[in-house]
Amino acid sequence: MKHFIEVSDFSKEEIISLIEVGQDIMQNPAKYGDAMKGRLLATLFYEPSTRTRFSFEAAMLRLGGQVIGFSEAQNSSVAKGESVKDTIRTVACYADIAVMRHYLEGAPKLASIYSDIPVVNAGDGGHQHPTQTITDLLTIQMEKGRLTNLNVVLCGDLKNGRTVHSLVKALSKFENNTFYFVSPKELKIPDYIKNHIKDSLFFEMETLEEGLPMADVLYMTRIQRERFADPEQYEKLKDSCVLTKHKMILAKSDMIVMHPLPRVNEISEDVDSDPRAVYFPQAKYGMFVRMALILKLVSEKENSAENHEEHRHELYSSCSNPKCVSNHEKLEKVGFGLLDKENHIYACEYCDTYYAV
Amino acid sequence: MKHFIEVSDFSKEEIISLIEVGQDIMQNPAKYGDAMKGRLLATLFYEPSTRTRFSFEAAMLRLGGQVIGFSEAQNSSVAKGESVKDTIRTVACYADIAVMRHYLEGAPKLASIYSDIPVVNAGDGGHQHPTQTITDLLTIQMEKGRLTNLNVVLCGDLKNGRTVHSLVKALSKFENNTFYFVSPKELKIPDYIKNHIKDSLFFEMETLEEGLPMADVLYMTRIQRERFADPEQYEKLKDSCVLTKHKMILAKSDMIVMHPLPRVNEISEDVDSDPRAVYFPQAKYGMFVRMALILKLVSEKENSAENHEEHRHELYSSCSNPKCVSNHEKLEKVGFGLLDKENHIYACEYCDTYYAV
Amino acid sequence: MKHFIEVSDFSKEEIISLIEVGQDIMQNPAKYGDAMKGRLLATLFYEPSTRTRFSFEAAMLRLGGQVIGFSEAQNSSVAKGESVKDTIRTVACYADIAVMRHYLEGAPKLASIYSDIPVVNAGDGGHQHPTQTITDLLTIQMEKGRLTNLNVVLCGDLKNGRTVHSLVKALSKFENNTFYFVSPKELKIPDYIKNHIKDSLFFEMETLEEGLPMADVLYMTRIQRERFADPEQYEKLKDSCVLTKHKMILAKSDMIVMHPLPRVNEISEDVDSDPRAVYFPQAKYGMFVRMALILKLVSEKENSAENHEEHRHELYSSCSNPKCVSNHEKLEKVGFGLLDKENHIYACEYCDTYYAV
Repeated sequence: MKHFIEVSDFSKEEIISLIEVGQDIMQNPAKYGDAMKGRLLATLFYEPSTRTRFSFEAAMLRLGGQVIGFSEAQNSSVAKGESVKDTIRTVACYADIAVMRHYLEGAPKLASIYSDIPVVNAGDGGHQHPTQTITDLLTIQMEKGRLTNLNVVLCGDLKNGRTVHSLVKALSKFENNTFYFVSPKELKIPDYIKNHIKDSLFFEMETLEEGLPMADVLYMTRIQRERFADPEQYEKLKDSCVLTKHKMILAKSDMIVMHPLPRVNEISEDVDSDPRAVYFPQAKYGMFVRMALILKLVSEKENSAENHEEHRHELYSSCSNPKCVSNHEKLEKVGFGLLDKENHIYACEYCDTYYAV
Repeated sequence: MKHFIEVSDFSKEEIISLIEVGQDIMQNPAKYGDAMKGRLLATLFYEPSTRTRFSFEAAMLRLGGQVIGFSEAQNSSVAKGESVKDTIRTVACYADIAVMRHYLEGAPKLASIYSDIPVVNAGDGGHQHPTQTITDLLTIQMEKGRLTNLNVVLCGDLKNGRTVHSLVKALSKFENNTFYFVSPKELKIPDYIKNHIKDSLFFEMETLEEGLPMADVLYMTRIQRERFADPEQYEKLKDSCVLTKHKMILAKSDMIVMHPLPRVNEISEDVDSDPRAVYFPQAKYGMFVRMALILKLVSEKENSAENHEEHRHELYSSCSNPKCVSNHEKLEKVGFGLLDKENHIYACEYCDTYYAV
Repeated sequence: MKHFIEVSDFSKEEIISLIEVGQDIMQNPAKYGDAMKGRLLATLFYEPSTRTRFSFEAAMLRLGGQVIGFSEAQNSSVAKGESVKDTIRTVACYADIAVMRHYLEGAPKLASIYSDIPVVNAGDGGHQHPTQTITDLLTIQMEKGRLTNLNVVLCGDLKNGRTVHSLVKALSKFENNTFYFVSPKELKIPDYIKNHIKDSLFFEMETLEEGLPMADVLYMTRIQRERFADPEQYEKLKDSCVLTKHKMILAKSDMIVMHPLPRVNEISEDVDSDPRAVYFPQAKYGMFVRMALILKLVSEKENSAENHEEHRHELYSSCSNPKCVSNHEKLEKVGFGLLDKENHIYACEYCDTYYAV
């Protein structure tokens, strides 16, 4: 574990180990209070995300470390004229670990390739937000005591929600989980995510009422008005994906309600006082996950060997995704990883856009 | 003392105790250098106020604590779409105490109701700025040796100056202080502030020359050009409220000149070198007051019980002040506190707007 | 050494001593890990410069100190209405040392005159950036083992580059250095810089190929398109000042390539992997220089006496440079230092604009 760019880089065992360190920190915070003394975290936020930035900064400070950084590109001369490559190489002169949030997909991956210090992806466009996924897993482990044998209801915009995609992929690695996808037809879970669910069952439905009674875990996400061509359609559909106190009556007494936050209207405020609502504790678990991650990356830095270039092929000279960082930085080559040998499916090494060759 | 929202929430004894802690920190800084080790302060500045932010951050860091935060809402995703209620509940996951500056009146109060951690009001619109008031009191105590038996001259915009209103109310709690209000007619001290002065005397006048000879304390504030409908009127009047080296001849040799800063033209620069000018030391006292406050709030957190809802009545469904936070956040109810039983006067629990029923 | 405003304020011995402290910190970082415990650095960046800010903040934090600050004036209420004089006097209440970056020339100098705490110039308009110069000297010392007997090739915009001017002046203090100035005619090194080179040789040329074979040190800088009235001229000339892998063949095997960063196109990326490229290590040396500087200024604060006003004459009532801070702040007088007794040459005390009287 040299960098933390996407969840699928890691085995089930590595993920479990990360969660266990997070649990240990939670139970013995004093043990870790000086663990990062004298070390520096750089928070490189090319777009603002206060919640995520706070979580990482609190994590480093609670480990006894210190923080430098910028909170949006507009304030940053580094961000303006300079390539991501040069920026990370300079930041590596000052800091011991860097966290990057970027509007371009694959930017943290690109940084990691040129970086002497560990790089953590804190969200790259619509692509990945891997520490959110580990946060979600730790929350389920803490609140339900297991990551297996769960009925997981996911509700909202399942088409565009990167946290949903990543969580489904991660939970599919654990035994006997069943997924219930609740969304308007326009925002259904994509096929390539369903293809990840190999040994588990899944069901699709359009209203929360259908899925709620089975749920051990309910994962709510926001539906953005902008996703609908027809505003009337939005008004008609949105209520079917809103959680209210009234609907909570349908749910099991030991179900948990999760949300990556911030929420807008999709969970009404009268749910907040329900003991099954764990979306604020979830934010707290996120800090402990990030403490575990910083700890692991900085301490494993010396022992780890880099194998980034393995199994990468120079399929095309560029990636077709206009938001891919490879179309915004000067790069000698773009690698494409072989995902599926039989069907000749490759993915861009930066943004993971799929290519069937 | 669970939160610090406005001065009038506290008794004279509590205020004196806070000042005494501030004095002790000033005299024995080493004793407090690690007092907040391992604790985090969140500075939530929805509008910029560098001076106030520096003062709080320096206070926390000099106590051995650490800081996370944002310095204006525009840079903050938290601040954009999310309710104050949700923001404070998330921040409470990461930090041990929060300081809030907001353009809406009552926002810090609202946050305090939903917060598990102490909330400090660092200024809410034109409403309150209570740590400035305690700073002013500590300055007077340090420089004059007492908070009683003082001739206090307040000069400038006495109509709109929240620091002036709050200081007058606070000093009225101490014995035998006399107030001299110096302002253009257009910017006179409001009646509801004068009503607070129960056992003390006060006088109103229009030029600094009239009040200066009596002053033990001279408190200067800025007059903003925008307050005058007629610009000519402003030009004619402003000099009567400007302090110059020449006018200082009229004042006692042990008088002190205070100013909440930043000043514009109301104190000419030739006064700066006069030993009676204490407006820069005043800024330093402000840091010690904030150290005392952070210390008290964090350490008393566990022992304190919340009594916020007491004596609150649901008088109206909303507050009539358009800048009140209750008109910008979804709230189930707005409480109105009974201020004056005889005359049936109530005040909004968030912004303190008065209602005579 | 009370403040650090420009390199020419210091003797060769003082500069060497600073470099030696930097080297010692580099070799024994643990010795200095708590040197600034309990002390605060204020970073006052009136214009953004992320790289420089990171370098100073990392320096203070790695010395065990803490940081408050703002990263651009737009976010700062201090910066908006308030004079530099009042701002530094307030900041001195909270912090133990201040670093100032300003778009106005002479602003850090002005601040230093009114400041009780050490002030460091982190760049003032096109005027000075002295910590960059000490960084350059430490880099040469570390990579070449000496500051004497060097062939130094400087390439790019030598007319406007303040780092080039300052480095030439500094290296001229050391024995037996020879300078090769490579630039388009339009961007030649100014005469007043050449006048500083008293006991050394210098040569001027228009292409990198001419100078490169002699170089012990190659110092690259950016050529900005905006400097050319005729864009075609820019296109024609820019390649003669671009360093490529191909041109590197001409250079000695122990030459070093330096650059103040950020670079744009003037060093092609294929040079990065050449062991002679030291521009990223140079950034790291910059952090150690700033650690040495903070350490020296804070510890020498008590012992030093101020002699700022010496040899200053009130030649004119104002300076003719529109970007000089003296034309933007209310000042009683502007001093002019006597630079050259024989020729009656004076310089503005803030921005160093020359006056032949």
